Amino acid sequence: MRQSGAVSLPEPSRRDTRLDTYVDAYAERTHGLTVSAVRALFAVANRPEVVSLAGGMPNIADLPREALGLAVDRLIREQGTQAMQYGSGQGELFMREHIVEVMAEEGIHAHADDVVVSCGSQQALDLVTRVFCDPGDVVLAEGPSYVGALGTFRAYQCQIVHVAMDDHGIDPVALTQAIVTLRAAGKRVKFLYTIPNFQNPTGVTQPVERRRELIAIAKEYDLLILEDNPYGLLTLEAEPLPALRSMDAEHVIYLGSFSKTFAPGFRVGWVVAPPAVREKLVLTQEAATLAPPVFSQYVISSYLEQFDWRGQIDVFRAMYRARRDAMMEGLTENMPADTTWTHPAGGFFVWVTLPEGLDSQAILPRAVSERVAFTPGPAFYADGLGSRNMRLSFCFPTPERILEGTRRLGKVLANELEMHRTFGLHDAPTPHIELQTGPAPNTS
Amino acid sequence: MRQSGAVSLPEPSRRDTRLDTYVDAYAERTHGLTVSAVRALFAVANRPEVVSLAGGMPNIADLPREALGLAVDRLIREQGTQAMQYGSGQGELFMREHIVEVMAEEGIHAHADDVVVSCGSQQALDLVTRVFCDPGDVVLAEGPSYVGALGTFRAYQCQIVHVAMDDHGIDPVALTQAIVTLRAAGKRVKFLYTIPNFQNPTGVTQPVERRRELIAIAKEYDLLILEDNPYGLLTLEAEPLPALRSMDAEHVIYLGSFSKTFAPGFRVGWVVAPPAVREKLVLTQEAATLAPPVFSQYVISSYLEQFDWRGQIDVFRAMYRARRDAMMEGLTENMPADTTWTHPAGGFFVWVTLPEGLDSQAILPRAVSERVAFTPGPAFYADGLGSRNMRLSFCFPTPERILEGTRRLGKVLANELEMHRTFGLHDAPTPHIELQTGPAPNTS
Repeated sequence: MRQSGAVSLPEPSRRDTRLDTYVDAYAERTHGLTVSAVRALFAVANRPEVVSLAGGMPNIADLPREALGLAVDRLIREQGTQAMQYGSGQGELFMREHIVEVMAEEGIHAHADDVVVSCGSQQALDLVTRVFCDPGDVVLAEGPSYVGALGTFRAYQCQIVHVAMDDHGIDPVALTQAIVTLRAAGKRVKFLYTIPNFQNPTGVTQPVERRRELIAIAKEYDLLILEDNPYGLLTLEAEPLPALRSMDAEHVIYLGSFSKTFAPGFRVGWVVAPPAVREKLVLTQEAATLAPPVFSQYVISSYLEQFDWRGQIDVFRAMYRARRDAMMEGLTENMPADTTWTHPAGGFFVWVTLPEGLDSQAILPRAVSERVAFTPGPAFYADGLGSRNMRLSFCFPTPERILEGTRRLGKVLANELEMHRTFGLHDAPTPHIELQTGPAPNTS
Repeated sequence: MRQSGAVSLPEPSRRDTRLDTYVDAYAERTHGLTVSAVRALFAVANRPEVVSLAGGMPNIADLPREALGLAVDRLIREQGTQAMQYGSGQGELFMREHIVEVMAEEGIHAHADDVVVSCGSQQALDLVTRVFCDPGDVVLAEGPSYVGALGTFRAYQCQIVHVAMDDHGIDPVALTQAIVTLRAAGKRVKFLYTIPNFQNPTGVTQPVERRRELIAIAKEYDLLILEDNPYGLLTLEAEPLPALRSMDAEHVIYLGSFSKTFAPGFRVGWVVAPPAVREKLVLTQEAATLAPPVFSQYVISSYLEQFDWRGQIDVFRAMYRARRDAMMEGLTENMPADTTWTHPAGGFFVWVTLPEGLDSQAILPRAVSERVAFTPGPAFYADGLGSRNMRLSFCFPTPERILEGTRRLGKVLANELEMHRTFGLHDAPTPHIELQTGPAPNTS
């Protein structure tokens, strides 16, 4: 995210003389509101001639729409008066029971009472932050981390402290150091936010041994872990790994979502938390929205009951595997020497580290002129790092488009390097403390 | 709402030794979280043998479910990849255009850009409060006011100041006094929250002349008005009145909803605000949920395009008119002498003032034993008033059940009065400052 706290507003139109009417009336928490770098990018990157490797939209074209339509038709006819009515502030019981079944795939044993359904897992993240964080509290996050989470933590005026990653995820030594240092300085460290599987944006996954280390640290330092797992079932190679929550129910609050394993448009996610936390989450949700979308819960539950949802995930996995492979091939063929990238075994994203001297934010406008878009690294940091990085997504474009995108990107980067050599435009070396523990060099 | 700030938690079960694990970790804002009196009631009142006059659920049995099922089937088949995908943080353009069309029925002229779609109008209320209110800021509200709004204002640690109503709504003299007094005491009065049509819980509507007075006060004192209008089209007698927002676009932020005019289960509401406010609302919503439910917006838009939605509202009005009439008849026949109540010309609710000495909260358990439920008045106040009041809803039970409910309630109240006479249980007179400007005596 941008370092400045300035609010980016659009140009006022002539008819709006009152643009400043409320300027003194806003709450303090709005002063840090900035347009998400990712979202501002979408307007540009979504033109059809641009190959966008910037977004995170799942490809849902393979969903069985004919059969779904019939199922929802029947749902409305037979259960419409319940499905279209107000519902429970914790989410419908049958939905929570289905969620328990889905979570069992990753080793989690929970009870339907432990689950709170929310308007997407983004809202679950928002509710947890709202329940735990006062202004000035510290949230630990991987460096880099999911831009939507950084925005939420910022909205609650938290201080975000990034912890270095290596190619097995968050570095336990760095984590321990961060906890000790912050607490010695009198800071309240509320939780560690982590995406253990196919992390957004790096694509890195924590192996089981690393998960055990994290749980041990959580126990030793009485640290709450907020585990966000939208991609865990979208493995492209092995079977899903056990969730952190399956290894410890006391120190882990778990966030799940149907957005990537089914579809995002229904806005149904969930959080699994201990009872006292869960009660506060439900009360907070009721004050925010009364209840999560009821009709959507009926649709998703019907889907889980009547369709082979595991088979559908296998269909998605095959489709994403082809796209991931195209991305790996395209990067290998087209990236300049001294470019490195991660090798995700699932999920949607690759994290690229550019050669010394290149700045991904500066390059982006030129890339868009060449009709390819990506998300620059700094979007995923609260502290200004990441300017040598890009996040590339392979979830939405076809394999052919992905290859074309990497070709265009390769040309853009080659031009950039040429300019640097010709004009001697060597920026001061980018701080790369976190890069030394960064992802492994490319191998293919 | 209860005066105490205690959090009401359920009894811990034996297996939960960790109930207190996080007791020191919660944010300050959670200390005021209380279980809503209304919601806690529902568990009891929803038993089938109880006539519940307590809830606020619209009766949606008359929706054309067969035709709706076919329409949604076609939506999924033909537009499923867009309808089930991530969407705009402001809400889909076509949804906002439909909303503009719906608002025109109440005289509002707005542009689709002015509209922000949210996860129900409850979330719109939450976003506006989040954008404007710091802890300690004052929010003015009618006395009494909607329990869900009080919960939201409390969740943001606002100080709620009630302003007296008469049978034409909020009292302009009391409002002016409140503004002047609070500002002289150095308080920041962020907005006046008002429900001008068929107010929840009193059923009172502000006539046009009163609306003009409120707008004049808003202009003179530079006061922001937050107009919440879920019931405006559910008139049972006359045509809808012009919204406050139609009389002033600068001082009024408008909240709307499809929950009562179509159905609640889709969670689609909206807010109309000036551009600078709207930008902050969108950014805040994106941090909270990414976007309002997309699939729901496609369903509601299809409904508005393909169905006679105005005709459907007429069907609802006739149905609610019969229920309102049954309630008026039942109250007239069954209430003890010295009971008064409002005469709503629309909406869902009647506000009853009990004879001197009766306490609605104390009566409620006895009423439920006699298989009738209502919502006690104090739920709708932040300051402990309302113990002589009950809110009765006529939206959900059939006319026959409503009559039966008023019979049961009449017996309960007669018993209460008998007990008071027999045992001399005269409580100290309930503070009735607001009752002297309260609703008109019953006429029928």
